[in-house]
Amino acid sequence: MNRFLSLGALEPGEIRELVALAGRLEARPEPAALAGRVLGLLFFDPSLRTLASMQSAMARLGGSSFVISPGRGSWALETRDGVVMDGAAAEHVREALPVLAGYADVLGVRAFASLSDLEADLADEPMATFARLVDRPLVNLESAIDHPCQALGDWKAMDDLGVPPAGRLVLTWANHPRPLPLAVPAAVAEMGALRGMEVVVVRPEPYAFPPALSARVARAAARGGGSFRESAERDEALAGAAVVYAKSWAASERYGDGAAESERRRALADWCVDEPWFARAPAARLFHCLPVRRNVVVADRVLDGPRSAVVHQAHQRLWAQMAVLHRMLAGRGNG
Amino acid sequence: MNRFLSLGALEPGEIRELVALAGRLEARPEPAALAGRVLGLLFFDPSLRTLASMQSAMARLGGSSFVISPGRGSWALETRDGVVMDGAAAEHVREALPVLAGYADVLGVRAFASLSDLEADLADEPMATFARLVDRPLVNLESAIDHPCQALGDWKAMDDLGVPPAGRLVLTWANHPRPLPLAVPAAVAEMGALRGMEVVVVRPEPYAFPPALSARVARAAARGGGSFRESAERDEALAGAAVVYAKSWAASERYGDGAAESERRRALADWCVDEPWFARAPAARLFHCLPVRRNVVVADRVLDGPRSAVVHQAHQRLWAQMAVLHRMLAGRGNG
Amino acid sequence: MNRFLSLGALEPGEIRELVALAGRLEARPEPAALAGRVLGLLFFDPSLRTLASMQSAMARLGGSSFVISPGRGSWALETRDGVVMDGAAAEHVREALPVLAGYADVLGVRAFASLSDLEADLADEPMATFARLVDRPLVNLESAIDHPCQALGDWKAMDDLGVPPAGRLVLTWANHPRPLPLAVPAAVAEMGALRGMEVVVVRPEPYAFPPALSARVARAAARGGGSFRESAERDEALAGAAVVYAKSWAASERYGDGAAESERRRALADWCVDEPWFARAPAARLFHCLPVRRNVVVADRVLDGPRSAVVHQAHQRLWAQMAVLHRMLAGRGNG
Repeated sequence: MNRFLSLGALEPGEIRELVALAGRLEARPEPAALAGRVLGLLFFDPSLRTLASMQSAMARLGGSSFVISPGRGSWALETRDGVVMDGAAAEHVREALPVLAGYADVLGVRAFASLSDLEADLADEPMATFARLVDRPLVNLESAIDHPCQALGDWKAMDDLGVPPAGRLVLTWANHPRPLPLAVPAAVAEMGALRGMEVVVVRPEPYAFPPALSARVARAAARGGGSFRESAERDEALAGAAVVYAKSWAASERYGDGAAESERRRALADWCVDEPWFARAPAARLFHCLPVRRNVVVADRVLDGPRSAVVHQAHQRLWAQMAVLHRMLAGRGNG
Repeated sequence: MNRFLSLGALEPGEIRELVALAGRLEARPEPAALAGRVLGLLFFDPSLRTLASMQSAMARLGGSSFVISPGRGSWALETRDGVVMDGAAAEHVREALPVLAGYADVLGVRAFASLSDLEADLADEPMATFARLVDRPLVNLESAIDHPCQALGDWKAMDDLGVPPAGRLVLTWANHPRPLPLAVPAAVAEMGALRGMEVVVVRPEPYAFPPALSARVARAAARGGGSFRESAERDEALAGAAVVYAKSWAASERYGDGAAESERRRALADWCVDEPWFARAPAARLFHCLPVRRNVVVADRVLDGPRSAVVHQAHQRLWAQMAVLHRMLAGRGNG
Repeated sequence: MNRFLSLGALEPGEIRELVALAGRLEARPEPAALAGRVLGLLFFDPSLRTLASMQSAMARLGGSSFVISPGRGSWALETRDGVVMDGAAAEHVREALPVLAGYADVLGVRAFASLSDLEADLADEPMATFARLVDRPLVNLESAIDHPCQALGDWKAMDDLGVPPAGRLVLTWANHPRPLPLAVPAAVAEMGALRGMEVVVVRPEPYAFPPALSARVARAAARGGGSFRESAERDEALAGAAVVYAKSWAASERYGDGAAESERRRALADWCVDEPWFARAPAARLFHCLPVRRNVVVADRVLDGPRSAVVHQAHQRLWAQMAVLHRMLAGRGNG
C-alpha cells in the first residue's frame, strides 16, 4: 500500500484486514517493526489528535517523525501552478513536497478544505496534487473532502463497541459557530456504507450533501452492501439508530460564507444533539470526530453520559494509523 | 508513582530517593529503560528548559515524546465546566486530556497561573481538573501554584553543590517588568522546608506570601525538619545565607494588575540582586529558576561570577525528570 | 570535530572526507551509530528543509532531537551584552545556550542575518557568541554570513551529478521581492572555490560582494585550487558554465533597506533565470538552495525541466548532515 488517501480507494475486505491489523497491534505491540524509519508530517492546518496519534503510532512501532507547519515555523507554501510568486508564499509545493518526501519513508499531509470553491474541494485538488508530486508512501491526514484515518479508526471503534455491521448509522448535521468542511461527513458516510451499514444523513435542507458526494456514498454502499439516504426528518431518522454521529458542515449554497451561515443557523440552534434525541434509539452510541463544541454541537449530558463513544473513538486513531504505517512500511526495504 | 504534581505530596524520604535515582541515572545511563514508551507533552504556555529537558530525558531513557501547544498549531482548549462553547475554544479539556493520555504512557502538562484569580491559583484548579480527567501517570510541568520538576532539580543541585541540609535558603523577591506567578516561589520554599533548611522569604511588604501559601510552607517545614519565616529586612535575612534564590512574583493585593505593579515597583528598582547583597554571605550561591532578566532581576556580575549556580540548576532538570519518568514507568507493563 | 560553523574552517581534504562519509551513510545506513544521543535544535528563524533534514538525519543514525523556537512556543532571547533586560526578551543567550547544550550531545543553531548592520553580519557575530558559550559540538544551521550544511550538501550534489572539480560555477544574483541575506551566496562561493572550481559571481553592480566577503572567497580559492571573480556581464559569465546557481541577496549600500531595494530592482526584473540564459551553456545544471520563488527568481520551465538539480540538492542535505553528526559524535563517549 503506497497511498492512504481515501477509504473508498480500498476494497471492503482490505479495510477489514487493516482493522484486524490495528487490533493485533493493540493486543500485541511490535515495538521494532519500523525501527530506523522516519515519518514526515506536513500540517497546513492545526491538529491535536492527528498530530499526537501519528507521532505516537510511529514511535510505538520503533520509528521517528518530524513535523513541518507552513506559517508556524515554516513559510507559506504556494499550491497553484504557473503563478508569479511575488506574494506571501516563499516556496511552491512542487519543491517542498518532493524534498520532504526524500527525508522520510512515509509522508502524512493535512490540508483542509478551501471553504470557498466547492467544486475544487469535492475534487480534493491539493491532495491530488501532492499525490502526483510524491512517490513515497503518502497518508491523508484530512484533506478537502476526506479523512480516511478518522474513518478507519471509527470503523474499528464500531467493531469494538459491538455496533452491528448492518446497523443504522445516523450522521446528523449539528449547529456550530462557523461553516466547517465536508471532509469528515464524507469520510464517515462512505465508511458506514462500505461497512455495510444503513447510512442515513439527517440535516436541515440547506445542508443536503452536494450531488457528487451523494453519488460517492451511494457507490460505496453498492460495494459494501450498505445503503444510503438523506432525510430532513430527524425523529424518523433517529429511530432505531445504532450510532448517532454528530457533525457540523457547511451548506453547498453560498459555500463557506460565514455571514450566510450565521443567518441560516439562527433558526437551527436546536440542532444540538441532546438526550431527547435518543428517545427512540435508547441504546445508540454517540460518535463525534472531535473537537466538539459542548452545548453547541452536543450537550454536556450526552458527552458525559454512558452513550458517548468519542474518547474511545479518538483512541482508535492510534491503532488504526499504526496499521496503515505498518502495512505501508513493514517488510519493505529501507527508504 | 502515578502523579508528580507537587513535591509536598511526597514524603521527604521519597524525595531523597528520587534525587538519588536522578544521580544514578546521571552516573549510569539506562538508555533502554523506557524503550517503546511515549511521553505526551501539553504546553498551554511557553517553555524553553522544560520542553527541551523533558524531551531529552525521555529520549535518554529510550522513549519518545510528542508536543501539543493549544493556540500554536492546536486550537484553544476550554477548561470551564458547563459553558456554551461558541467562543474561541474549539475543544474542551474533558475530551482533550483523556484523548491525549490515551496516546501516551505518561502525560506532562504546563498551565500557568491565571494571574487574575488568586484563590483559584492557590487552589491549582486547572491542574486538579487535569488530574481528575487522566488516569495515566501525570507530571506537572508548572501549574498555577507549583513547579515540582523545578523544585526536585533544585534539591539535587543543592546536594551537588554541597549546600548543607540545614543551611539557610533565602528566597528573595526581585524586580521585574511584569507581575509573575507564585508557582516557583511556592515550590522552592516548600522544597527548602522539606529538605530541612532554614527558609527565609525576604520581600517588600506588598509581596508577602498569601496566608494559604505560608501555611503550606510551614507544614512542609514541620514535616521536613526545616523552618520558615518571612522578612522585609533584606540585610538581616541575607546574613549567613547558603543559597540566595532570586525570583520575582506578583503581590496578592490587586493580584496580577500590571498597572498597579508598575506603580508599586517604581520604588523597588534596587531589588535587583547584586554583589553587595552578599557582603554578609560571601560563600552563598545564587539560584534562579530561569529565564532571568539580566540587570533587572539579577546583575550581570552576579550571573557571570563564580557564585551563580543557575546553569547547573537548569541542567539538573534533566536528571530529576528522568528520575520521575523512570519511577513512573520503568518496570511497569506497556501502556 | 567539535564545530561545524563554516566550510572554510576545514581543509579541502577534510571536506572531501565528509562528502565521502555522507555517501557511505547513504549507501550503507548505520541506524544505531548515535543511539541514545540527543540533538538540540534552536531555530531563531523559520525552516523547512533544515529542520526536517536535521531531525531525519539524527533519527536515521538512531538518535533523537528536540526543537526550541524563540518567539514560537519559547520567549524571545537577548543576544546583546550588558543590556538592562526590561524589554521583550525574557532570557539571555548567555543562559539559554549553555542550558540547552547541557540537554543535548550536539546543538544546531539557526540565526539569520540582521539585514541592518552589514559589518556585524559579515563578522557573524551571534554565531561567534554562541560558539563561545557552548562547549558541546555545535552546528551552524545558517548564520548571518554562512550556511555550511547547505554548502556541504551542494558539494555532494555536484559530485553525484558529475560536475567537474574544475568546472565553472556561475553564482548569479536573481530578483526577489525582498532583500535577503548573503549567507548562502557566501557559503556557496566559498564551497566552489574550495572544491577547485572557477567561481564567477554575476550580478548587477549594486550587488557586488562586500570586500570582506570577496577576500574570503579569494582565500578559499587559493586554498582549494579554484578561482574567483565577479562580473556584471551575464552572457559572458554564463558561457560554458557547468552549474548556474541562482540566488538573490541584498545590496551592500543601504543594506537591507526594503524600499531602496524595491526601487533598484524595478529595472532588474529580467534577472529571473530562464532557459535563454543557458544558450551558451546547454549542459549546465540549475542549482538553488530553496525556497525558490517561481517566475521571480527562476522560471517554471527551468525548475520543471531536466537541468534543475534543486530537489536532488535538497536531498543531499540529509546525508551531508548525517556525516557531520556522525563525525562529531560516533565513537565518542556519551555526553
